[in-house]
Amino acid sequence: MSEQKEDVAANWREVADGHRMTHLQGVTAPLGFRAAGIAAGIKASGKADLALVFNEGPEYAAAGVFTANKVKAAPVLWSQQVLTTGRLRAVVLNSGGANACTGPGGFQDTHATAEALAAAISDWGTETGALEVAVCSTGLIGDRLPMDKVLAGVTEIVHEMGGGMSGGTDAAHAIMTTDTVPKQSAFHHTAGWNVGGMAKGAGMMAPSLATMLSVITTDAAVTADQLDHALRAATSLTFDRLDVDGSCSTNDTVLLLSSGASEVTPSQDELNEAVRLVCDDLATQLQADAEGVTKRVVVTVTGATSNTDALAAARTIARDSLVKTALFGSDPNWGRVLAAVGMAPVELDPDRISVRFNGYPVCENGTGVPGARDADLSGVDIDLTVDLGIGSGTAFIRTTDLSHAYVEENSAYSS
Amino acid sequence: MSEQKEDVAANWREVADGHRMTHLQGVTAPLGFRAAGIAAGIKASGKADLALVFNEGPEYAAAGVFTANKVKAAPVLWSQQVLTTGRLRAVVLNSGGANACTGPGGFQDTHATAEALAAAISDWGTETGALEVAVCSTGLIGDRLPMDKVLAGVTEIVHEMGGGMSGGTDAAHAIMTTDTVPKQSAFHHTAGWNVGGMAKGAGMMAPSLATMLSVITTDAAVTADQLDHALRAATSLTFDRLDVDGSCSTNDTVLLLSSGASEVTPSQDELNEAVRLVCDDLATQLQADAEGVTKRVVVTVTGATSNTDALAAARTIARDSLVKTALFGSDPNWGRVLAAVGMAPVELDPDRISVRFNGYPVCENGTGVPGARDADLSGVDIDLTVDLGIGSGTAFIRTTDLSHAYVEENSAYSS
Repeated sequence: MSEQKEDVAANWREVADGHRMTHLQGVTAPLGFRAAGIAAGIKASGKADLALVFNEGPEYAAAGVFTANKVKAAPVLWSQQVLTTGRLRAVVLNSGGANACTGPGGFQDTHATAEALAAAISDWGTETGALEVAVCSTGLIGDRLPMDKVLAGVTEIVHEMGGGMSGGTDAAHAIMTTDTVPKQSAFHHTAGWNVGGMAKGAGMMAPSLATMLSVITTDAAVTADQLDHALRAATSLTFDRLDVDGSCSTNDTVLLLSSGASEVTPSQDELNEAVRLVCDDLATQLQADAEGVTKRVVVTVTGATSNTDALAAARTIARDSLVKTALFGSDPNWGRVLAAVGMAPVELDPDRISVRFNGYPVCENGTGVPGARDADLSGVDIDLTVDLGIGSGTAFIRTTDLSHAYVEENSAYSS
Repeated sequence: MSEQKEDVAANWREVADGHRMTHLQGVTAPLGFRAAGIAAGIKASGKADLALVFNEGPEYAAAGVFTANKVKAAPVLWSQQVLTTGRLRAVVLNSGGANACTGPGGFQDTHATAEALAAAISDWGTETGALEVAVCSTGLIGDRLPMDKVLAGVTEIVHEMGGGMSGGTDAAHAIMTTDTVPKQSAFHHTAGWNVGGMAKGAGMMAPSLATMLSVITTDAAVTADQLDHALRAATSLTFDRLDVDGSCSTNDTVLLLSSGASEVTPSQDELNEAVRLVCDDLATQLQADAEGVTKRVVVTVTGATSNTDALAAARTIARDSLVKTALFGSDPNWGRVLAAVGMAPVELDPDRISVRFNGYPVCENGTGVPGARDADLSGVDIDLTVDLGIGSGTAFIRTTDLSHAYVEENSAYSS
């Protein structure tokens, strides 16, 4: 119950129906979870680089979604395999190296990490097998991890597991790469159960998932199937809708673990909504901290013949380099928006497309509105709405501008 | 015959079988063509902005390929329509405004331009109808053209039509927008027939066509069907393989006109090859002058299960912002290449992919080669070869890096 006592400090805000959320807690907000983050020496900088999320039970149901990239990092291949049991006791995450494109040796490193963590937890008092441990990695692709440091760190971190929210916050720090701030979110349901989460990722945001490692926890008493359903529904509307540069990581992983410690079993709809709220909150934080971002952009497409078409059109616009550079320049260049949407693989009638920037009409029925170039895009938030005018399908994508800082951050060093 | 006399000045180089090419001539290299370029006042800068290519005959066969964008500019709609006859006497091109997304009024402007040019040519002595005139426009999307200036210019330019190569060079200058140099190419066949061309375009290079206006001429005596066949074959291997930023213009147009003035009828294969050589030469010039380019990159994919798969994989890599920013930074970040190719909609086995930069192996069978980070990409030309290792399909895409200059050029002003 310690988390509930910290309400004031944790800055909870009320959302619908008396339920509350905060950014100041994460994976340890739900009952039954411990977490830790330490500097194991994987990063040359000496910054925190190893995180642990540990489920104390009494239940151990789990679900995961992974990158759609055909080139998958060793920890993704491992975690997909262990998740087939629908059960996890722990997740160990490292920054400082992606362990991707590292061959069979890299897969053995992941396996050894899971074995070492299972052994350390067993020594600590809770019998655990390697197949109950998911592994996540993030960092530069192509290099082997310094396994002496990883294995020593794995033993150390088990002894560092805290209660309360500090452990969760430490873990959120330890998974950061080019992130400038840790991302956490927690949801408290009035019926006494909770969902919490952390995420990292600022570049390589993707068609299917943002960059992205994320661990979500809940103390609801639910099955692995219920978790799987909730997680897929939530990610499709949140992380999947975040598209910073159209690139998709080899390591993207989102895990959802349940301890059952609240002894409350919500309905599937309630669980879905709580997980969606936490994922949505984390996705918003990822967008705001994306590499080189100077504008937070929401592209909404309405009037499509289907929601699927609307999503495809929104994604095409959100990925267009000419649209994104115009937004960086606060330029209401709606012609580039029309040129982009004209390339989307969707049904459309060029003469019925209308465009608004921040509610200001700039193009109606495919033709410019007088004064369109005066639309004010000088603020940080830009709402770009494109009405295809031929149906009722609608969807949105969150994206960012394409700035000098993006080029700088991605060209100046290997990341 | 005046072009042949200018051989030395025009810096012809020998290509296969004694045939010759030059960059210093364009649409007026073939017999039977006149051209001009003038400043009509469409551009606020006062620079040249109106071009004319005129076919003196005796034949008037023509073919065209146009943007795949569903949002098509008025001149594209017009020119597609007139090309259904397979016959053109003239092409009038303006920079300083795309006349795209300008509604029915914009289409009337294009029609009026064709009518005015036909009338001026008729007055000048060659009876011409508006349906024998193609119109091309390039510039900012969304604004109506200053028709008083366009119409006055159209009359003036007919009287400016030169012979020799100066008219062609003037025309190549007048279609420039953010281009820094005019692009021309000419091919002389030993059998006495020629192909010449000009192109503009530096940004908005595309899946289907680069930005791009291009007019190609030939004095071969061939039918519209032969031209159509040659043009489609050539563009699919040249302009279609140039992908600077994945964006596709509303105005892309490539036209091929034949005067028949050489009285030589080459075989279809000979015609195809000559048109391909000229288009390839122009595409190379477009790549070198692309917005913000600091690297000229050729992405080649080999070992795919089909050429189609190879092309899709090459295009996915060539469009990836993280790959392109790494190349700007001369960083042999092959991990990003693997992450990109893993998202391509093609068959692949992650454990059989190999990557070379400028011939230097950096990744073999999905795993990094020791010393891979030492590959030297400091030069302007980068050859990136990805071998999927599962078949014999191969294809290449020409692209560029993603630089600060690209962001600057596309954010600092409406274009």
